[in-house]
Amino acid sequence: QGTRDHPPAQAALRDRLLSAGVSCFKRHGAAAIDTPVLELRETLMGKYGEDTKLIYELQDQGGELLALRYDLTVPFARYLAMNKITNMKRYHVAKVYRRDNPATTRGRYREFYQCDFDIAGQFDPMIPDAECLKIVHEILSDLQLGDFVIKVNDRRILNGVFAVCGVPESKFIPACSTVDKLDKVPWEEVRSEMVGEKGLSPEAADHIGEYVQLHGGLELIERLLQDPKLSQNKLAKEGLGDMKLLFEYLTLFGITGKISFDLSLARGLDYYTGVIFEAVLLQQENEHVEEPVSVGSVAGGGRYDGLVGMFDPKGRKVPCVGVSIGIERIFSILEQKLEASGEKLRTTETQVLVATPQKHLLPARLKLISELWDAGIKAEMLYKKDPKLLKQLQYCEDTGIPLAAIVGEQELADGVVKLRDVATREEVRM
Amino acid sequence: QGTRDHPPAQAALRDRLLSAGVSCFKRHGAAAIDTPVLELRETLMGKYGEDTKLIYELQDQGGELLALRYDLTVPFARYLAMNKITNMKRYHVAKVYRRDNPATTRGRYREFYQCDFDIAGQFDPMIPDAECLKIVHEILSDLQLGDFVIKVNDRRILNGVFAVCGVPESKFIPACSTVDKLDKVPWEEVRSEMVGEKGLSPEAADHIGEYVQLHGGLELIERLLQDPKLSQNKLAKEGLGDMKLLFEYLTLFGITGKISFDLSLARGLDYYTGVIFEAVLLQQENEHVEEPVSVGSVAGGGRYDGLVGMFDPKGRKVPCVGVSIGIERIFSILEQKLEASGEKLRTTETQVLVATPQKHLLPARLKLISELWDAGIKAEMLYKKDPKLLKQLQYCEDTGIPLAAIVGEQELADGVVKLRDVATREEVRM
Repeated sequence: QGTRDHPPAQAALRDRLLSAGVSCFKRHGAAAIDTPVLELRETLMGKYGEDTKLIYELQDQGGELLALRYDLTVPFARYLAMNKITNMKRYHVAKVYRRDNPATTRGRYREFYQCDFDIAGQFDPMIPDAECLKIVHEILSDLQLGDFVIKVNDRRILNGVFAVCGVPESKFIPACSTVDKLDKVPWEEVRSEMVGEKGLSPEAADHIGEYVQLHGGLELIERLLQDPKLSQNKLAKEGLGDMKLLFEYLTLFGITGKISFDLSLARGLDYYTGVIFEAVLLQQENEHVEEPVSVGSVAGGGRYDGLVGMFDPKGRKVPCVGVSIGIERIFSILEQKLEASGEKLRTTETQVLVATPQKHLLPARLKLISELWDAGIKAEMLYKKDPKLLKQLQYCEDTGIPLAAIVGEQELADGVVKLRDVATREEVRM
Repeated sequence: QGTRDHPPAQAALRDRLLSAGVSCFKRHGAAAIDTPVLELRETLMGKYGEDTKLIYELQDQGGELLALRYDLTVPFARYLAMNKITNMKRYHVAKVYRRDNPATTRGRYREFYQCDFDIAGQFDPMIPDAECLKIVHEILSDLQLGDFVIKVNDRRILNGVFAVCGVPESKFIPACSTVDKLDKVPWEEVRSEMVGEKGLSPEAADHIGEYVQLHGGLELIERLLQDPKLSQNKLAKEGLGDMKLLFEYLTLFGITGKISFDLSLARGLDYYTGVIFEAVLLQQENEHVEEPVSVGSVAGGGRYDGLVGMFDPKGRKVPCVGVSIGIERIFSILEQKLEASGEKLRTTETQVLVATPQKHLLPARLKLISELWDAGIKAEMLYKKDPKLLKQLQYCEDTGIPLAAIVGEQELADGVVKLRDVATREEVRM
């Protein structure tokens, strides 16, 4: 339940998608690492808040207590700490496991691919963070998914907002997860959850509302840096200063057109400590709509400077920032697009079918195909001793093989091969 | 325990190795499929004989009872039956899990990659079987692992031998697993295990010994087809007839030089029903040794015509033949070779480092690198505002980046970039 086989057409599409990610990561100089699907249970415990209950545990069959990885970030942090690595740019594309209620129609599975890029190390502020946003921009542009916006915020700014609005520190995390719902429900509902469930005062909630409904660019950052209350808060000031720097770098990258500093962005995970971001696709069906409507997150990430230290016996920190591409959701979108276009994705790369038009020519086929393989040419033949030529050509049409190399008695006698273009039916002897 | 992280150097080597396999499979027209790491426990039970105890089971957390896959063959058979597919050529490269005693120094792990190619479908005899052997030949030649031999046998021939030697049918499988040890221990030991542990009569054992120590080529097949006893056994006759056909096809492929029909080859798994084969590397250190010494199996496979039927409610059979490349053992060999050669494998593909020789030039670096990325060029820069030029060039040398694109004040003023060949120190302005 909640898992699926990928038949060839899906596997080919998924490969195309993952290649787009991997080639971007390589373009940015990242190295690949691979970690086991199995982790010690204790490694995963206490890292995912409430979601810890979604971890798949292995039966105790003697030996260590194991679990299936929940994401690729915690194993990466474990890997860095275990090997005392303080500096690394890596990507990792692999499956992760969540014992969630699957919603397979919306592309949510219990086993799914993650496609992560992270930069670990102590560097000058916002340079690696800006690169992560550039990567999201490159991949989403490359995949031609339509218009998108990358929302950016900073956990320090959010915490500063909560502080100046009079929220006690113990309620920062609950308040954060409520704010995060603003992309799905109107402010009134968020407000009533804050006051009702989360126990914030109505005044604090109203005050928060004034901030978290703001979004914009450099001018908003400047305005908040002048905000009489927020500018007095150390965390918020730091966060806003870095946000300004980030926008400078993004301007040099030429991508600010797709970036929105959005104070409602909070992101679920506990381990973020600085910049956070999330890319959403925009609906384009109705061009008269004033505000574009979001159709869901397709990438996200942020800075997590404390996670590696949790795995180091001496608590030594390694600052990290990273991005995860939402492969499964993008996969669903591409699948729908492909279906709508009627385009049929080839599942093999075969260039030529080796065919014979008469009986008793299997030896000729075997000899020719072997020469083709040895020359690096992708070739197939039917596994029948004496197939009909029509069947062989039909197979080419069914599977999209563009050429047929035909050896008949005449060709054998003349020492040639007849090469046929399956689509145009043109033939040349060679 | 028994698992490992692949740091970048290992991940790069493994990628190179898996690519060799995948490009060969694609050359032969195979499509990719992907199946979950998790299977229902009942799918895996009763398929691996004694080794069933090595299956990793998941904790019962409510819902289905799950286990981690043990190989890629059973999931493939389950996939075919579940989707009523009767005809498919597929490859699958993925991790499998065995709760074995790990022997990590010999490349044996609890989590390891398998790299499989299989052909399912009802076809004319031995054509797909011959292709599997051709594939093994291509991959091992491509990887330049040194000399190798592919041993071939047929379960039907082995069973025929046991029958004519007076072994009761109930003891075929135990006798088979004892014969399989002949590549590691001398015949006397195998014989005493047969008589002692397996309870065969000394006469039967001696008789078996006369057959299973034979190996050769077409002439041996011809000789056994004339063997007064074996030629009377229906199974053996079928197997020998097909073996002859196989050798004809392999002759057309031009690879019989590396093929040995070896009656001692038995292979462990229960599900094989016809041709079986195993590739072993030959030791070449001492060229005066008469008989080359084997250093272990690096690929194996065979025909399993009954497995898919086990998953079909009506027991409908789909004949299959396939090969599994022993990625982990080959990986260990390549790793040792690489170490011995002193060659350093690059872990990234970065083509150029964007560098600046003076302070306050971060904006120029960000602008240039962004242009390079957008043009599809693999580029890196140091994440420092004002790095020293020497440090930047040192980074190129450490990581094997061949070029540095340098923008200094002069270059900015002139509107050029200085491109430096890191190895030769040659520079051009462009």
